[in-house]
Amino acid sequence: MSERNQATHGLTRRAVMSSGLAVAAAAPFAGAAAAASRAIPETWDEDVDVVVIGTGFAGLAAAHEAAKAGASVALLEKMRVPGGNSIISGGVIAAPGSPMQAERGIEDSADALYDDMLAAGLDLNHRALARLVAEKALETVMWSIEELGAEYDGLSHLGGHAVPRSYALAAGSGAGLVVPQLARLEEMGIEPRTRTLLKRLVRDGDGRVKGVEVHEGFSHPDLDSGTPRAIRAARGVVLATGGFGGDPAFRALQDPRLGGELDTTNHPGATSEALREALNIGCVLIQPSWIQLGPWTSPDERGFGMAPTFVQGATASYGLWVATETGERFVNELADRKTRADAIIRTGNRAIAFVDAAGWRKGMGGNAGERRQRMKETGVLMEYDSLDEMAAAHDIPAERLKETVERFNAAVAAGEDEAWGRYLPQDIAPIDEPPFYAVRLAPKIHHTMGGVAIDTEAHALDVSTGEPIPGLFAAGEVTGGVHGASRLGSCAYADCLIFGRIAGRNAAAMEPWS
Amino acid sequence: MSERNQATHGLTRRAVMSSGLAVAAAAPFAGAAAAASRAIPETWDEDVDVVVIGTGFAGLAAAHEAAKAGASVALLEKMRVPGGNSIISGGVIAAPGSPMQAERGIEDSADALYDDMLAAGLDLNHRALARLVAEKALETVMWSIEELGAEYDGLSHLGGHAVPRSYALAAGSGAGLVVPQLARLEEMGIEPRTRTLLKRLVRDGDGRVKGVEVHEGFSHPDLDSGTPRAIRAARGVVLATGGFGGDPAFRALQDPRLGGELDTTNHPGATSEALREALNIGCVLIQPSWIQLGPWTSPDERGFGMAPTFVQGATASYGLWVATETGERFVNELADRKTRADAIIRTGNRAIAFVDAAGWRKGMGGNAGERRQRMKETGVLMEYDSLDEMAAAHDIPAERLKETVERFNAAVAAGEDEAWGRYLPQDIAPIDEPPFYAVRLAPKIHHTMGGVAIDTEAHALDVSTGEPIPGLFAAGEVTGGVHGASRLGSCAYADCLIFGRIAGRNAAAMEPWS
Repeated sequence: MSERNQATHGLTRRAVMSSGLAVAAAAPFAGAAAAASRAIPETWDEDVDVVVIGTGFAGLAAAHEAAKAGASVALLEKMRVPGGNSIISGGVIAAPGSPMQAERGIEDSADALYDDMLAAGLDLNHRALARLVAEKALETVMWSIEELGAEYDGLSHLGGHAVPRSYALAAGSGAGLVVPQLARLEEMGIEPRTRTLLKRLVRDGDGRVKGVEVHEGFSHPDLDSGTPRAIRAARGVVLATGGFGGDPAFRALQDPRLGGELDTTNHPGATSEALREALNIGCVLIQPSWIQLGPWTSPDERGFGMAPTFVQGATASYGLWVATETGERFVNELADRKTRADAIIRTGNRAIAFVDAAGWRKGMGGNAGERRQRMKETGVLMEYDSLDEMAAAHDIPAERLKETVERFNAAVAAGEDEAWGRYLPQDIAPIDEPPFYAVRLAPKIHHTMGGVAIDTEAHALDVSTGEPIPGLFAAGEVTGGVHGASRLGSCAYADCLIFGRIAGRNAAAMEPWS
Repeated sequence: MSERNQATHGLTRRAVMSSGLAVAAAAPFAGAAAAASRAIPETWDEDVDVVVIGTGFAGLAAAHEAAKAGASVALLEKMRVPGGNSIISGGVIAAPGSPMQAERGIEDSADALYDDMLAAGLDLNHRALARLVAEKALETVMWSIEELGAEYDGLSHLGGHAVPRSYALAAGSGAGLVVPQLARLEEMGIEPRTRTLLKRLVRDGDGRVKGVEVHEGFSHPDLDSGTPRAIRAARGVVLATGGFGGDPAFRALQDPRLGGELDTTNHPGATSEALREALNIGCVLIQPSWIQLGPWTSPDERGFGMAPTFVQGATASYGLWVATETGERFVNELADRKTRADAIIRTGNRAIAFVDAAGWRKGMGGNAGERRQRMKETGVLMEYDSLDEMAAAHDIPAERLKETVERFNAAVAAGEDEAWGRYLPQDIAPIDEPPFYAVRLAPKIHHTMGGVAIDTEAHALDVSTGEPIPGLFAAGEVTGGVHGASRLGSCAYADCLIFGRIAGRNAAAMEPWS
């Protein structure tokens, strides 16, 4: 096969092998679910209007809107703490056409975001869902400020976005949104019921989902632990249980390269049992083999870690990514996640991201000194007094590395990155001020694009008919279609909040069954 | 985005738009399935050991082995005639390390086929399943000769295979295998029961599949037509119902580009209702968004048509494919299907495949004159006295087309295609003998790689547990995992026959339930 044809594969076999990605055999899922049965419980232990399962952005937004509409809400969380992947996420939310963009003279629109989503998604996005996210993203950020009091303090440029358009939470992570969401819910009298595992979605013979069976006092990951309890949902159930990025067996079924012990940015509860129960009662699974690797992670720490903020925030806009074997750039550092992760894997995960001292200041802002100290202590961040020293440390051909930097500095002077077409911010400067800071790159599993099919009203669709399953709504990473083959950074917030709110409102508006 | 990054996408949005691929909205599925219910029928109308659903290669092979093991078999087919997509398929079956290869001095092995399968499959293949197909392919061809009397008369080189390794049925299509399969079954007293639609897989509360509910006298595509009948399967049920390439609504859910009225090579019965019923009773859907486009089809005829035999058999080995806008080659004409289909789409479906008179003779063999006449009459095949005439007819820059041919002829003389790395057969010659024969290219939907998860014993796996569903087996295109992202030509035969035989044997070997 010619090199050109190999390139169209995105990710060649040899590249995968040399990168150390695992190849897993199919394995039984951890902990058997309940035996398939669609019987209604003889008695319900509790009766509410709306059951919301999951306490990430989507579940919290759904509970919020359902309660606001007057519904009684049971908000369930299987882990010991609420927040799921949301609370540990990067803290940026796409907002095209925002006031912060206007201040900086950046033109943008919902259409431009939609175009970027479809380009990254390889056009596999469900059009109506992606369109809704693009169009409601800005008003959703404004809602988070007005309704929740969320605080943003910067405008970020994430990969695959044509322009800087992502509002950065002042807290520096998703906690900056989850904490205000929880506080508002508490004002409304709703507290997450932690350690409560979904065991069964109760779907009656008439097709309607009428409640849930759970285990209270669940101790992750023992799916048999806890005490059974049946909760009747008079109006509706909202499934907001997140993705399966932390579930090697289910990942391996959909992409055998991604099983085993491959590291993930996800929290330990990001497993598939709730999704599989949804499939078991008739939801439609779509696009499950599109599993996203984050390109900005480091092999020198576990999980999401501290690298991504530096790699994305500093090196992608003000620095360079180079393959250590060649000393050359190998991708547009601001390309979408899949493009960049595939490119890193093709180097055999032998690549670094680096920036000079000026780039560090611009990209890391505020309390950067403290962060630098912590990153250096853990060994994630390396500091060098010269490019020669950095080259020696990573076995990079020093002359070629310096040529690469010179070429990029010439592009900066010319105002255009002809080689890779990277967006150059107004405050970019030549890379020449020591010390230099570097992180090694190794992609980790980050987001599962596939999930249950929904419509624009957040109805979960039935595999037999393609029509909504009465009483069942879904939002967030447990759903599929919004992002197609690859999600853009900062679009998960919009996705989760928008469909979570729709799901909560629509569940509360259902006629109670009797 | 740079050109280099675009290339990694395989298929860019602009390319898709300009190629006329459809973008469909989600739509309800045609004809609602029965309301979800797992109740056992009060009475069974009939009692057999094994029920086989579908009469393509896989279903026929399953029925054959089950009957041979002494089981009574009900062999069901929803259409008016048996054979599914198999009977209209191209008639070639991979056989690495075969006698025909030895005669021609071609070295090959199961390992080499396995490597090719994984390269085309982008490494998404389930390793154990692909390995089994590669290792049993040769013996399965021999079995088809010895047990069925199948007749082969040539060795074909299909795209993505390192060497010519595919046995070509003398009949020129899959009928050359389906007809002997049906004849053997008739000898064993088994006849397909046509116009019999699967409505429900009966899965009991104990988890075992115990029979089926069907409609006899079904009239495609009216899913409510026909008369209900319940068939008890004392030992097992084999699902061999094929892919969903002919189902725009389900295709569009998994890949929104591929909905609508996009043409397909599939027969009209290649719809999703049996797959969706399998999901409804707890099978696991894997990798459903990988839907293969055949690269060798023509927009000047409907369906599979006559073009593929010429495009693959003659032009890919002895001719050239050129983009009409540039007059240049744009892909290795012997690359795997996905690589080639993506490349054609990137030209905006403005590409032709052509060969000279010598290439026609070598590639088309036997009764080629008659076939040429038929293809010309329908307008699929065009004949030109010179490259200039061909260029004028297709609006190709004539000088560049002639340069392209000269460059390739130089490669032929040198014995190596440096530009694209194409395999050059021993009998290749310069392209210079008029007349020239050309076909316009436009990919059509051909094979759905995704489907229900199975293990190497053809057990269908349960979405709750990942373990086999007792009493349910699956084989052929309704399953997923064997081919990963893209199936190699001539590997469907091996896949269907190998897993069909395993499924039939294992279903017959189950202990009867009572």
